[in-house]
Amino acid sequence: MVDQTAQIQTHTDIPQYVRQLGRNARQAARVLARASAGAKNLALGATAGAIESRRAALAEANRKDIENGRRNGLDSALLDRLELTDSRIDAMAEGLRQIAALPDPVGEISGLHFRPSGIQVGRMRVPLGVIGIIYESRPNVTADAAGLCLKSGNATILRGGSEAIHSNLAIADCIQAGLEAAGLPGESVQVVGVTDRAAVGELLTMPASIDVIVPRGGKGLIERVTRESLIPVIKHLDGVCHVYIDDEADTAKALEIAYNAKTQRYGTCNTMETLLVAEAVAGAILPDLARRFREAGVELRGCPQSLALVAGMNPASEEDWYAEYLAPVLAIKVVRGLDEAMDHIDRYGSHHTDAIVTESITKARRFLAEVDSSSVMVNASTRFADGFEYGLGAEIGISTDKLHARGPVGLEGLTTQKFIVLGDGHIRR
Amino acid sequence: MVDQTAQIQTHTDIPQYVRQLGRNARQAARVLARASAGAKNLALGATAGAIESRRAALAEANRKDIENGRRNGLDSALLDRLELTDSRIDAMAEGLRQIAALPDPVGEISGLHFRPSGIQVGRMRVPLGVIGIIYESRPNVTADAAGLCLKSGNATILRGGSEAIHSNLAIADCIQAGLEAAGLPGESVQVVGVTDRAAVGELLTMPASIDVIVPRGGKGLIERVTRESLIPVIKHLDGVCHVYIDDEADTAKALEIAYNAKTQRYGTCNTMETLLVAEAVAGAILPDLARRFREAGVELRGCPQSLALVAGMNPASEEDWYAEYLAPVLAIKVVRGLDEAMDHIDRYGSHHTDAIVTESITKARRFLAEVDSSSVMVNASTRFADGFEYGLGAEIGISTDKLHARGPVGLEGLTTQKFIVLGDGHIRR
Repeated sequence: MVDQTAQIQTHTDIPQYVRQLGRNARQAARVLARASAGAKNLALGATAGAIESRRAALAEANRKDIENGRRNGLDSALLDRLELTDSRIDAMAEGLRQIAALPDPVGEISGLHFRPSGIQVGRMRVPLGVIGIIYESRPNVTADAAGLCLKSGNATILRGGSEAIHSNLAIADCIQAGLEAAGLPGESVQVVGVTDRAAVGELLTMPASIDVIVPRGGKGLIERVTRESLIPVIKHLDGVCHVYIDDEADTAKALEIAYNAKTQRYGTCNTMETLLVAEAVAGAILPDLARRFREAGVELRGCPQSLALVAGMNPASEEDWYAEYLAPVLAIKVVRGLDEAMDHIDRYGSHHTDAIVTESITKARRFLAEVDSSSVMVNASTRFADGFEYGLGAEIGISTDKLHARGPVGLEGLTTQKFIVLGDGHIRR
Repeated sequence: MVDQTAQIQTHTDIPQYVRQLGRNARQAARVLARASAGAKNLALGATAGAIESRRAALAEANRKDIENGRRNGLDSALLDRLELTDSRIDAMAEGLRQIAALPDPVGEISGLHFRPSGIQVGRMRVPLGVIGIIYESRPNVTADAAGLCLKSGNATILRGGSEAIHSNLAIADCIQAGLEAAGLPGESVQVVGVTDRAAVGELLTMPASIDVIVPRGGKGLIERVTRESLIPVIKHLDGVCHVYIDDEADTAKALEIAYNAKTQRYGTCNTMETLLVAEAVAGAILPDLARRFREAGVELRGCPQSLALVAGMNPASEEDWYAEYLAPVLAIKVVRGLDEAMDHIDRYGSHHTDAIVTESITKARRFLAEVDSSSVMVNASTRFADGFEYGLGAEIGISTDKLHARGPVGLEGLTTQKFIVLGDGHIRR
């Protein structure tokens, strides 16, 4: 087992240290790929138990991070995200038990069929191999991401923010205890034990040891990872999500959906940032809706046509159509109809999640087929775009990429499929 | 429609020219994504017709390339690949008609199910968008690749080798005729009309215009593309394929499969390059097999143990275990059993296609589960690893990547899935 006690390591040769983690992970991945669902679930359950029984040690490690953070002037939002409260510790353990309860995706064989040559061809679901997770602030990601990767049979190298290093290493200790209880290699989950930023650069350039990089954090982090990585990245960029209220919308549904998509939570990537309204119904819908938004404290920024319908709205600038506010601010635009709405979404949106409210099946079908986003919805709030709501059980992120996994990425997105061929001495003629 | 007559264009500003192709493609992709299967099939059929009716023009353009090639000292293998014989022209047209006959993957909805919240969640298969194909020599790739991309609803930018530019542009003219007959945008398929190498560098760095790059050609091309591309690449590297003859193999099947996997065709990526034999049966199998290989003119390079069993074999060096010969040469290694065979495949193989010959279901199951290759086979020749043999209809290449498409890539590999959500005014609580 690797030396992975809850202390920051000092290494003069960081590239060498990180490359060794990569070799360890590759070896562990071969064992994990053939580990039984029982062994993996045992490790997840034992990790959950260790997190609960070592609550005091976790809190103590977290206190160190919080104190350092205060000393280094972290703002209160960051300090809040960093904190491991009692309920967050409970949630980590509960999350691991939920992952244990999900079906194991590894080994599933699909589409096995006979070909005219007599061979049988199908596909088998298998782990990706080694997954590198690069994340910021929230220490619970250490447990969540390690749990999802372990269940899907992948080895993991976790690189959290330096501000959370003590918390992350304390959680890593619990994971080590869980792996040991299940007889799985300790190197299945490794937390990078140095805070030097050079470690990230090294991780991104080890394609022989790491199969996929998953960055979780702000735009700056994701852009750096995308730019520097020589390894495929499952990334999640902006969520500039739209609701389009069609001229054939049911007014009551339109009001409910638009209000929910904006106000149910402001800071999430599936929150509506721009509302598009067909001009035929704008006069009937916008004044009511604007009143509700104002009562909720949402600032409204409108196009000239909507400004004419609702008094006291601020004018929207070109930048507002591109904005991911993550705040109680909403841009509103009146459009002629479906085509202009889809043009707007294509031009300004981020291809994350977009919804239409309409009673017309023809327009619903067009919107579903033609809007090129990872989630496209009819008569439902964009806030549903989420791994739990979709029934994936848990998600490692929401991919805005098109290749491989698109939308919420659960266990299946952490696996791949290989072809299997069964014969009985068959040769090619 | 873009100017795309069969002549090489001269552009002083190559980056600007290539970026314009990208913008054209992006626009065409939006139209293609919603084109009906009927329109796409009509375009494919009309292109096939144009290829047949313009046979003389194609031959004339190809003659120019062949003459230039001779003048520039291309070797005979390259000149052969470059040539558009009558039967190759027929094959291009026939290939397009076969693609037209395949089911349209676009719009397929799968897994639509109700969630506890009341929403219905499923996935819809959609085109990737714009695909850049970078290839060498064989002009038939122009028709094959354009056909597959068109059928899967993607716009294509094709960049063939400068040695084939006249042939490629003449084929592009036929495709233009086909698109026009179907009322689809001419920019759906664009052949880069300049021979300057800078055009490739430009294509690889336009992520806003191109969604995926597919390189088809030699190792040098693929390595350059992988290194320089800022766009996801579906790539195909080496095929260092193995057959492992287990100690519980049926001898007759073992002899047939090993012989077929090596000799049915030497130059293909799914040809066996290393034969592994369990030591318990090596004495019974290798002398017979070696005699058959020698009769076929295959040079054998063996490990010390196999040298002791078969007189006159050449000794294999460490490099032989890594070699993709693509020639009548075979490396042979005696191993203790399944574990050593799988270790060897993991260490020296290229994760392309590997086969076991055994009557043991336990060992077959382990080999299928544990060998991490894009195709894993039991009692069948590695030569079956191919889109047609697998029933994919046609392939744009064989991916040795793990993300997205793995193994032969057909129409499905040129698409992605988005989530669709259907509600009836549902909001998140």
